[in-house]
Amino acid sequence: MEGNEAADPSPALVTDVFARACTSRAAFEDVTSRWSSLVLLALAEGPHRFGELRRRVEGVSERMLAQALRGLERDGLLTRDVAGTIPPRVDYALTPLGTRVAEGLRGLADVLEGAVPEIDRARLDYDAR
Amino acid sequence: MEGNEAADPSPALVTDVFARACTSRAAFEDVTSRWSSLVLLALAEGPHRFGELRRRVEGVSERMLAQALRGLERDGLLTRDVAGTIPPRVDYALTPLGTRVAEGLRGLADVLEGAVPEIDRARLDYDAR
Repeated sequence: MEGNEAADPSPALVTDVFARACTSRAAFEDVTSRWSSLVLLALAEGPHRFGELRRRVEGVSERMLAQALRGLERDGLLTRDVAGTIPPRVDYALTPLGTRVAEGLRGLADVLEGAVPEIDRARLDYDAR
Repeated sequence: MEGNEAADPSPALVTDVFARACTSRAAFEDVTSRWSSLVLLALAEGPHRFGELRRRVEGVSERMLAQALRGLERDGLLTRDVAGTIPPRVDYALTPLGTRVAEGLRGLADVLEGAVPEIDRARLDYDAR
């Protein structure tokens, strides 16, 4: 505003996971998507090669795994390290940001793994109504 | 095994979010699914009515919201409280388990909201390759 000397020249960065236009909403959707979330959980246990990830994440197809890995690499959550061997060896590993995200997902998985009897009971009750 | 007196009569419950047959895997997929995760985040702020949730979770349709609410109720993560007013007033609120799950998701959202500049930079770098 003219004459308002208190105006901040750099607009504050407001991020909101509920806002469709916010990068954090898109990133939240990426990391919680079906296969990406399980890939992050697997990589929380250490670097993996493609085939190792495919075995660890039960049910993922080659195409879906490749797509999840590309999305996570694009968001800066994992690195793809190609060793100059023959054949080339490719390792996927979490970045520091990816590690923080994966820790959050692991906490969530721990809660759910510990609540299986409670969830099973709730489902039986709901389905019996 | 016959003659093995040390055998535990109740098999140990092993839960694993990576295993397709485990309840925790299905529950993990439920709570991380596109709309359910945002509904849980909204309810972490307090009970909401249907219309309030619809406004809070930008972009959700009535049908998708109803489906997410049913799934979360079935898993025992939220309660649906119908007040006997005319018209009836329906409030959705988290159960104690739902609160723990929502706290995990909120932690994840906080990490991502705080990492927006880093994620934006990673995406620009990736797309420029």
